[in-house]
Amino acid sequence: MTDSIVSRRRAIALAGVGVAGVAGAAAVGGALIKGAADDEPHPAEGAVAFTGEHQAGIVTPAQDRLHFVAFDVITKDRERLVGMLKDWTTAAARMTAGRDAGEVGAVGGIPEAPPDDTGEALGLPPSGLTITVGFGPTLFRDATGKDRFGIADRRPPALADLPHFPGDRLDDTISGGDLCVQACANDPQVAVHAIRNLARIGMGVVSVRWSQLGFGRTSSTSKTQATPRNLFGFKDGTANLKSEETELLRDHLWVQPGDGPEWMTGGSYLVSRKIRMIVETWDRSSLAEQEMIVGRRKGSGAPLGGRDEFDEPDLAAKDADGEPVLAKTSHVRLAHPTMNGGARLLRRGYNFVDGSDGLGRLNAGLFFIAYQRDPRKQFVPIQRNLSRMDEMNEYLKPVSQALFACPPGVTGPADYWGRALFA
Amino acid sequence: MTDSIVSRRRAIALAGVGVAGVAGAAAVGGALIKGAADDEPHPAEGAVAFTGEHQAGIVTPAQDRLHFVAFDVITKDRERLVGMLKDWTTAAARMTAGRDAGEVGAVGGIPEAPPDDTGEALGLPPSGLTITVGFGPTLFRDATGKDRFGIADRRPPALADLPHFPGDRLDDTISGGDLCVQACANDPQVAVHAIRNLARIGMGVVSVRWSQLGFGRTSSTSKTQATPRNLFGFKDGTANLKSEETELLRDHLWVQPGDGPEWMTGGSYLVSRKIRMIVETWDRSSLAEQEMIVGRRKGSGAPLGGRDEFDEPDLAAKDADGEPVLAKTSHVRLAHPTMNGGARLLRRGYNFVDGSDGLGRLNAGLFFIAYQRDPRKQFVPIQRNLSRMDEMNEYLKPVSQALFACPPGVTGPADYWGRALFA
Repeated sequence: MTDSIVSRRRAIALAGVGVAGVAGAAAVGGALIKGAADDEPHPAEGAVAFTGEHQAGIVTPAQDRLHFVAFDVITKDRERLVGMLKDWTTAAARMTAGRDAGEVGAVGGIPEAPPDDTGEALGLPPSGLTITVGFGPTLFRDATGKDRFGIADRRPPALADLPHFPGDRLDDTISGGDLCVQACANDPQVAVHAIRNLARIGMGVVSVRWSQLGFGRTSSTSKTQATPRNLFGFKDGTANLKSEETELLRDHLWVQPGDGPEWMTGGSYLVSRKIRMIVETWDRSSLAEQEMIVGRRKGSGAPLGGRDEFDEPDLAAKDADGEPVLAKTSHVRLAHPTMNGGARLLRRGYNFVDGSDGLGRLNAGLFFIAYQRDPRKQFVPIQRNLSRMDEMNEYLKPVSQALFACPPGVTGPADYWGRALFA
Repeated sequence: MTDSIVSRRRAIALAGVGVAGVAGAAAVGGALIKGAADDEPHPAEGAVAFTGEHQAGIVTPAQDRLHFVAFDVITKDRERLVGMLKDWTTAAARMTAGRDAGEVGAVGGIPEAPPDDTGEALGLPPSGLTITVGFGPTLFRDATGKDRFGIADRRPPALADLPHFPGDRLDDTISGGDLCVQACANDPQVAVHAIRNLARIGMGVVSVRWSQLGFGRTSSTSKTQATPRNLFGFKDGTANLKSEETELLRDHLWVQPGDGPEWMTGGSYLVSRKIRMIVETWDRSSLAEQEMIVGRRKGSGAPLGGRDEFDEPDLAAKDADGEPVLAKTSHVRLAHPTMNGGARLLRRGYNFVDGSDGLGRLNAGLFFIAYQRDPRKQFVPIQRNLSRMDEMNEYLKPVSQALFACPPGVTGPADYWGRALFA
């Protein structure tokens, strides 16, 4: 196996962590393997920088595929937990650059030892992989109030348990979690590989609580992206916060100095909700009813009463009968910032289909993800408004919910996820 | 909505069913929308011809994503069943050409009526979509032996119920089915859209029994494709039947005249198996053990004792101690045609991750699909061999199995899936 080790070293020399310029060429355990397009890698195949002021995977133009996982921490040992977070950071830096998860890779290692990469992404390009980590409320204090890792006094007030919303049918086994990892990529095999290797590295420290695959992004996070469609067939996320809106991101997305404990400055709070959509019932409703419920045209995505997708919804407009053009119960009206004290969200959800429901229907819907500066002022009031009034609720069944504090970005080789929290 | 209807008509005129040349430009309900690459559509975005001697989606170079569904037929009315098969054929011809599922689409239709396309694929290119249909044993005769639709005497002998294999833990609710539809595409949103619209069209006639998403093809079906990797991290399907091997396809894949009832000539039998892979245990085994169990090198995919992936495995080779280089219990040896009376399969499986298993692990594995001329002579003896001897079984848990007779291709506008069966 000597030849493999030599070529692996060469590969590492060629493709150091953070070298985004190797986009399209994936350094793997045994060799430097080119992506599909040898000369001009497709942008979707390139690498996203891992380090930075903020974690990647939040304002990064939303990739097409998702693997999201929530972990329970099963150790009581703070040092083991911190050690795993360090190992995760190292592995994530490698994998987002298109490399294997660990030093001796999946091949060319020691025959008598388990490989330290699982191998299914060998030869695949970085595929825009981002890996984003968050800390759940239960990491700070367990259900009995116990300070598990000596960080209870560092729990941000904004990481307050979410209230119950009318209509929710939450399944505890797929809600919450001590840690989360969001892996987004343009190739699902690459996203799954990332989650699986972090789970492997965390063996004995964490245990998978729940995990969710998403196959079609339902929001744009950049003005360079076309607005995608959700499983109701409508454009979704037209009014989403975008990476180019620097001032709005400061006000609505990133935690600012003085907002709470200093370790979260530059971070953001993630709310996830798995929302089953009863698509069979929706598909039997008329086009006019669908458009009335959403408040937008199905084809263009224009708000009712407007002409173009990005026209501002006119909440005051009345029709010939004096009725509001945008119904009081329409989704667009209820979610509009003016109805929610100006609150905005950066949404980053995905469509899902998880087999069938045993009642002759697809188990399909939206895995909603939203990032924000303070859920108490953003997600909670907006969702309270929607859960009480939105006519769309008739077609929705929320089954899972979780909240995580995503720390700021890792700034260099000596840094790791949670360093400021555990320092 | 006049403008929408006009532009829709123009779109239909531009992109008639079967015009594969519009690859990259998707005609949708309200407009002709260009794919991402305006001038040179990516091959992955193009259309695959729907009509032909054989159904598409069998030897078609395996697309990257899968949505597979099995239906129960809930009507007792033969004419309603036949009517649905006709409607499905029409809709499938449209959708595989990148169009909406029905005449008045998702937008631009009658406001008071439900749209006849669900809309989530509006604006997406054909994405290599293929839709392949099969008939299960229970369509011919129910569990009580009743001839449900007057076709019991047309059941092919090759469509014999599969035997029980050692180690199987089959869940009846996700096994079997009266009808199956395999939708493969390079965009999962397109595959899901196809299945969902067929389910919508079949409302009252069929009910979803089970459905499965797959995200990474685990076999090549063409010599033009690189061999992909399964979730054990190994190249999978190296020795698969390939679309270029015309004589082998005749002998091993396509039903020949005289094989059974004439309506199946040109068709093929599909066996599906959902095989959970206990990846956490696999990941703790050594590289040498993994390679011994598979019988191939993890990096190159070469058979042990060989140098290159496509080297023929040398089943007779012995090592210095006189032991077989390819262990008696290795997967490559047991699946090799010489160990199975020459039997070959065309495999077309996909990786899956369905959340977690409630025990701290990912619910991940292989959704195995294999096509063949006669399962009694191909899948059954091979699987019997594997289920008894294969050391890989320690890491596998088969949970679902199904068998379907996939009729030959639809040859033109007057033809429909199952015409020869129901004629």
